[in-house]
Amino acid sequence: MNNHQLWMSKALQLARQGIYSTHPNPRVGCVIVADNQLVGQGWHQKTGGPHAEVFALREAAEKAKGATAYVTLEPCSYFGRTPPCADALINADIGKVVIAMQDPNPQVAGKGIAKLHAAGIEVICGVLEQEAETLNKGFIKRMRFGLPYVTVKLAMSLDGRTAMYSGESQWITGAAARSEVQRLRAQSSAIITGADTVIFDNAKLTVRAEELGLNNTLTDLALKRVPLRVLIDSKGRVSFDKAFYQYPYSLTVSSLPKPELLKDEQYWMQLPCNQQGYIDLQELLKKLAKDYAVNELLVEAGATLAGAFTQAKLVDEYQIFMASKLLGSSARPLLDLPLQSMSEAISLDIKDIIAVGDDWLIKAYPQQ
Amino acid sequence: MNNHQLWMSKALQLARQGIYSTHPNPRVGCVIVADNQLVGQGWHQKTGGPHAEVFALREAAEKAKGATAYVTLEPCSYFGRTPPCADALINADIGKVVIAMQDPNPQVAGKGIAKLHAAGIEVICGVLEQEAETLNKGFIKRMRFGLPYVTVKLAMSLDGRTAMYSGESQWITGAAARSEVQRLRAQSSAIITGADTVIFDNAKLTVRAEELGLNNTLTDLALKRVPLRVLIDSKGRVSFDKAFYQYPYSLTVSSLPKPELLKDEQYWMQLPCNQQGYIDLQELLKKLAKDYAVNELLVEAGATLAGAFTQAKLVDEYQIFMASKLLGSSARPLLDLPLQSMSEAISLDIKDIIAVGDDWLIKAYPQQ
Repeated sequence: MNNHQLWMSKALQLARQGIYSTHPNPRVGCVIVADNQLVGQGWHQKTGGPHAEVFALREAAEKAKGATAYVTLEPCSYFGRTPPCADALINADIGKVVIAMQDPNPQVAGKGIAKLHAAGIEVICGVLEQEAETLNKGFIKRMRFGLPYVTVKLAMSLDGRTAMYSGESQWITGAAARSEVQRLRAQSSAIITGADTVIFDNAKLTVRAEELGLNNTLTDLALKRVPLRVLIDSKGRVSFDKAFYQYPYSLTVSSLPKPELLKDEQYWMQLPCNQQGYIDLQELLKKLAKDYAVNELLVEAGATLAGAFTQAKLVDEYQIFMASKLLGSSARPLLDLPLQSMSEAISLDIKDIIAVGDDWLIKAYPQQ
Repeated sequence: MNNHQLWMSKALQLARQGIYSTHPNPRVGCVIVADNQLVGQGWHQKTGGPHAEVFALREAAEKAKGATAYVTLEPCSYFGRTPPCADALINADIGKVVIAMQDPNPQVAGKGIAKLHAAGIEVICGVLEQEAETLNKGFIKRMRFGLPYVTVKLAMSLDGRTAMYSGESQWITGAAARSEVQRLRAQSSAIITGADTVIFDNAKLTVRAEELGLNNTLTDLALKRVPLRVLIDSKGRVSFDKAFYQYPYSLTVSSLPKPELLKDEQYWMQLPCNQQGYIDLQELLKKLAKDYAVNELLVEAGATLAGAFTQAKLVDEYQIFMASKLLGSSARPLLDLPLQSMSEAISLDIKDIIAVGDDWLIKAYPQQ
């Protein structure tokens, strides 16, 4: 790692602290360095709050003059809820700006860099770009394609089963894996499931502070920014007295019209069913990105819905928790995915398999 | 690691070179150290050949006097095909003997150590004992329990499937995984399969030099010591013109009497079927250990036979090659293992998951 990369990795580390709270904004970190000394640092915490650059400039104060700012995302160039950060850097008389990646937001997209250039500031872009893209994979996908980044979370036995034939499935994975799932939920803009999971497993999909395993600051930030809980219940099978409906900020996706009795923060989306009787998932994703600014969507569903996302090729990432157990050949499959020949097999790239307590987490990505 | 452990790990490294060739003997390595300098080293290559200590003493010659010998297994105390190594060490006037583990062979079992003691030689036992036990897990199990160490090799997709519903299964795993399987075969005393695998997949279960990926010395040693290929064909369904029968050193296990037309090195074992029509696997294992001195048995079979070993709780280790593919919910299961409730689920310990080419190797052990 050269010097630029070292400071940028520090900025990325700061940015990662916003992973649970910046929705719908990207996670951004900034460090200001003068004479190879850190003189200011900051990260964006939540929408409406100051941007990373503002925190860092405040801390650096006079020392910002002639210094180098490392920012994980191109500084913004327009007046949103806060004034443009490019202007703040120019006004602070910063000497150089090193950026990990251009902002994919069409409102910025190079204009921040151009503004800095025009003010005579040297700009270097593309330092640790891949790490920066990974950090905001959801925000970037929404900006570029109008779609959320879709992560399918699954829990299975070593032999690829999720539950016994009867549906019995308690305790496939252990406490460490369940805590990891809580963090996955907390960093998602939205979590989606199907009617069966709410009816038979009484799924709530809430984030539980005590299972997050985070420090107080991050726990507080995570709990203040509640993910949208989305239920696909196309035929209106789920009754409103289910636990799912006892918590704020839910969205029901249905082919039926919006009922009268919805409470505050119980949203409704009416979408037509296709000829097979299913909601069009691609259409749903578009609307989740557009109407709810969903960057990262976590699919926590049974084999049917997770299989439907897979078959529709809408999955960006699988996070599969694997328990060291055999559930046997009568047990339920990982995904409802009726393939006939090897040529239809779906090839994935497994990037990593890590131990999580007594279980294992497999991160896999569909091949392009 | 202290000094004893360092030299013992060198002796274990030597011993491991015999992994493909010492059957039915254990793998043993020896180093002789004088004034903290290596003066002699040796490892056992094959049955009938000199033991590790003999090679090492030859190399050390006069320098063995007063030196310390590190041996991975207690030196033998009886006249077998070669004279007792304990005597050789005594005659060489060795000063001290450090041993990783007692010989589980009831013909030795502490007598070698006693002999050394009686000759006034200091003996330390138990240095890197666990590593030494792992190296000879098959030999030890046969000596202690009269049974081979059973490793079940499986190849599956990420969703726990081995083939499409039709049976189509070519190329689930890649070349690196297939090479690893060749080495697994080469280090086994015997490889066992069922009739369907020979009938439908035309399995030969041979060791192929070009796929071993070993240096010339080890390849030569591996090819000179051919593993016994065992076919369970209880009802006589496999015809003798199958490829399986075109190679030397096979054993057919059947409920039928031995046929006339068997060639040299085509062995036959008649065993009764139980009420369900299956050969008793426990009984078979006992006979393989007793009549064929099988230390390590590799099960390379379909879901039925691999499932039967699992259900009978006869498996010591699973080596599961996992491909980064989804074969879907119609595909064939990993094991025929019809379990009804979670309480019947079989718990394993996964010790390790490692990348093998584009595939992953999961090493799992049934919980005691």
